[in-house]
Amino acid sequence: MRILLAQINPTIGDLHGNTEKILNGIARAKKNSADIVVFPELAICGYPPEDFLLLPHFLDAIEKKLEEIIAASSGITVIVGTPRINPTKTEKHLYNSAAVIQNQHLLGYQDKTLLPTYDVFSERRYFEPSQCLNIWELNGKKVGLTICEDIWQQGDSLKYTTYRRNPIQELKALKPDLFLNISASPYTTAQFKERLKVCSSAAKTLDCPVFYCNQVGANDSLIFDGYSLSFDRHGNAIACAKGFEEDFLLVDTEKSLPPIKLEEHGMSDLHQALVLGVRDYFSKSNFKQACLGLSGGIDSALVACIAVDALGKENVIALGMPSRFTSKASFNDAHALVKNLGITYEEVSIESPFKSYLELLAPYFEGRPREVTEENLQARIRGMLLMAFSNKFGYIVLSTGNKSELAMGYTTLYGDMCGGLSVINDVSKMQVYALSRWINREKEIIPQNTIDKAPSAELRSNQKDSDSLPEYQVIDHVLQAYLEEHLSPQEIASRYGYSEALVQGLIQRIHKNEYKRRQSAPGLRVSEKAFTVGRRFPIVQKWV
Amino acid sequence: MRILLAQINPTIGDLHGNTEKILNGIARAKKNSADIVVFPELAICGYPPEDFLLLPHFLDAIEKKLEEIIAASSGITVIVGTPRINPTKTEKHLYNSAAVIQNQHLLGYQDKTLLPTYDVFSERRYFEPSQCLNIWELNGKKVGLTICEDIWQQGDSLKYTTYRRNPIQELKALKPDLFLNISASPYTTAQFKERLKVCSSAAKTLDCPVFYCNQVGANDSLIFDGYSLSFDRHGNAIACAKGFEEDFLLVDTEKSLPPIKLEEHGMSDLHQALVLGVRDYFSKSNFKQACLGLSGGIDSALVACIAVDALGKENVIALGMPSRFTSKASFNDAHALVKNLGITYEEVSIESPFKSYLELLAPYFEGRPREVTEENLQARIRGMLLMAFSNKFGYIVLSTGNKSELAMGYTTLYGDMCGGLSVINDVSKMQVYALSRWINREKEIIPQNTIDKAPSAELRSNQKDSDSLPEYQVIDHVLQAYLEEHLSPQEIASRYGYSEALVQGLIQRIHKNEYKRRQSAPGLRVSEKAFTVGRRFPIVQKWV
Repeated sequence: MRILLAQINPTIGDLHGNTEKILNGIARAKKNSADIVVFPELAICGYPPEDFLLLPHFLDAIEKKLEEIIAASSGITVIVGTPRINPTKTEKHLYNSAAVIQNQHLLGYQDKTLLPTYDVFSERRYFEPSQCLNIWELNGKKVGLTICEDIWQQGDSLKYTTYRRNPIQELKALKPDLFLNISASPYTTAQFKERLKVCSSAAKTLDCPVFYCNQVGANDSLIFDGYSLSFDRHGNAIACAKGFEEDFLLVDTEKSLPPIKLEEHGMSDLHQALVLGVRDYFSKSNFKQACLGLSGGIDSALVACIAVDALGKENVIALGMPSRFTSKASFNDAHALVKNLGITYEEVSIESPFKSYLELLAPYFEGRPREVTEENLQARIRGMLLMAFSNKFGYIVLSTGNKSELAMGYTTLYGDMCGGLSVINDVSKMQVYALSRWINREKEIIPQNTIDKAPSAELRSNQKDSDSLPEYQVIDHVLQAYLEEHLSPQEIASRYGYSEALVQGLIQRIHKNEYKRRQSAPGLRVSEKAFTVGRRFPIVQKWV
Repeated sequence: MRILLAQINPTIGDLHGNTEKILNGIARAKKNSADIVVFPELAICGYPPEDFLLLPHFLDAIEKKLEEIIAASSGITVIVGTPRINPTKTEKHLYNSAAVIQNQHLLGYQDKTLLPTYDVFSERRYFEPSQCLNIWELNGKKVGLTICEDIWQQGDSLKYTTYRRNPIQELKALKPDLFLNISASPYTTAQFKERLKVCSSAAKTLDCPVFYCNQVGANDSLIFDGYSLSFDRHGNAIACAKGFEEDFLLVDTEKSLPPIKLEEHGMSDLHQALVLGVRDYFSKSNFKQACLGLSGGIDSALVACIAVDALGKENVIALGMPSRFTSKASFNDAHALVKNLGITYEEVSIESPFKSYLELLAPYFEGRPREVTEENLQARIRGMLLMAFSNKFGYIVLSTGNKSELAMGYTTLYGDMCGGLSVINDVSKMQVYALSRWINREKEIIPQNTIDKAPSAELRSNQKDSDSLPEYQVIDHVLQAYLEEHLSPQEIASRYGYSEALVQGLIQRIHKNEYKRRQSAPGLRVSEKAFTVGRRFPIVQKWV
């Protein structure tokens, strides 16, 4: 049997465009004499459709698109993810389903059994779990079919839920000849390895080949990496689709392929994820050009590189916005980067509006020392200038704060936090360094001095980040242990040999700055626990 | 039997302070010779604790507080809401429970059965549903006990879920002598009436008295109105605690009380809800003073009135920030309001920074017409000035946009959207008028001219809201029908006799401005469907 895994990049709610992609996939499958063509989870509407699933007219429109897909399925079997109305109306109104279509007939649906409702997932908000797992007789084979999370109970990486049911075990009793899983499994730096494990485990448990079809593309904060997979019955990966782009993986179950060695791609994948995140955010909302503030520091340099890779150098406009506190080195570093990238650069000094504000506010602030208020004024003038360029020319502003800064609140609300997309807000400072070195792996793109110098916001004379923050390595340890592992301050202090007071202080800063992050631009999620989505803490609280 | 419903106002995560309130409630109950004292849902940690529930050390600390409560229960029965570890570890790690404590012994737990996972609720993220409903033998009576949502399957107001189980029906078979429900049921303008219905229905179904203990107080966006209730076996309300403040309702089941007539309090409740929302946002985060921009328009006037009622006139600082486009009438209206309220007022013209920006940007914007960019500059200068006062003096900025404006994107990101709390962002423009008239019911506080004049942002000469928007009544119809009822454009057009193109255009604007609202200050939720919390739509989408 020939199976085509159609790893497509749908846009949320673009029923017409997504259906076109599905129809093209079917045509391609026919051309390649495939018996079955498989599309990702909720492919007709794109994942995650969120509260569009509550609109009856949205669901009606999906139903109509499904009819088009059925009509196009002559001579082939199509498996496609779609929401399905729960006919009994208890408890939730939908199932998250795979429609099984053959030769212009809808054979039926396999509903999803395990509904993730943790971190970035809220499937219990919309969906009922399946009543049972079925075996589908397709082209003379007994096919087991599941949706995304359904295979994850096989592994040991689920942190928040231990499901009662295990669809793989339920299917085992039904002895499938082959097994399909349609997914929309978002990228994180840890995900690929885990995915290999659960797929391999499913193959071994079921003693049959496994075909895993994943969504690709970014939808808001979530980046889907693709990497659709095929495994033999022994649990060996034998084929893998491309990462971070649309791809079509054709596998013939009658031909035995040798195992392939698949590895995590570390920095390369992280870079591709961020590039795809930026590219799809722009292209799917019909924007072309980005602008960002270039300070000469490492964060904005990294974001500029990512933007160029995502949008092309002709579509990236950098603004230098120096003040009395901008060092000569920062000028040089910014200019060198602009030259290396070949992007447009404008320089607008913030001195005149800064003076104007200081004079205007002088009567009210008389007798009070200068402090963070005056620093924030500078950052906010820069934000305003970027937004003015954005408004006038139709650019999207990219904000450049990293995860470690956002955690600490070392960032100005309505200042450097301005933007339509916060590119590296789930990338820790240590990862910012690692990515920058990776970008420079063949030649210097980010000036070495930008990487080497001590970080500074340059909002007052001789300011250094280390005046107000501990070493970023310390912050990043605490972030990882607290955000992702939920360790207590005591446990973190003892793991790393830090003082409990230091750890407690950092955790306090994390929570104290929740109010800022709540108003941050949406970011691209790449870690196991992002601030931007999937983490929910109150602003007003007295626990910490 | 004497029952005390202790309607307390907990702060999220303030385990010490909340436990103090519980211990005080127990002491008060003993002084009043109560047999049972009842506290709200999750009273020890406050509702909603969100992802604090994922931290093991947070759960350990709650456990310790529960022990203090048990120790204080000599001679009395205490019912208190608390999370409880699921001992089987499948599927979610917690139950949302009522601890039943008697005379220094923990008799056991009643777990919550119906777990709302829609709108603002995400209980399936943390909790398992109960295995069964129990009858508790307390002081010689058979007591049925449930938690919040457990009674709501009785009514017909659940929009998103039809539960399989109905705890009231399950309990009916067990013939309780009386029935308790502990709740954290947030205020909306429609909620009180629905709550009366479900409580009354439960009493009739069970043929026994019903005692309903609700949380009071605001936690971030959610406002809990209190109004704890007691019903006789015939379903008549016989006692009701105060709304919007802590209260203790003592009822003796042996004494028969006459039915009382309870009505919705419309504008008065909406006003109290917003006042409580502001007050708790400030007091629970240890802030005292607010500042806001006063334009002479109705939205900022209303917010100023609410702030004065919440914080006291001595704690409200208004900034007038006129420009070349500010009319004489706006000056007069703002000054009259300041006088009526007796608040501090400062006037800071935005002309000098505005000129400075225009000059600075002139070389880049040459040859291009003035448009929304220059309007946004003015709004953003005002935002920056407010933030400068906030930073320098420790005020929280109140932002003043209403729901109708936010829906349409008729508001400037990083401009008038700046703030720590967006007070009326779930109040539609028509409700803004109604509330303003209500505030003026005895004497003119908001100048009549502010209410009567055509709304204008005054960001260019002779600008009127109606230049860019249809009548607010039209917008508000569409908002209600689309956001709350999920009607299609066709259905909305036909209900109100609007053109389909008009409705479609408004719905497009709603979705197009998702990116702005995603960065808005948190707002106070008062409607059935707020933008600020409980509504989840992607920014990038092609459905609309």
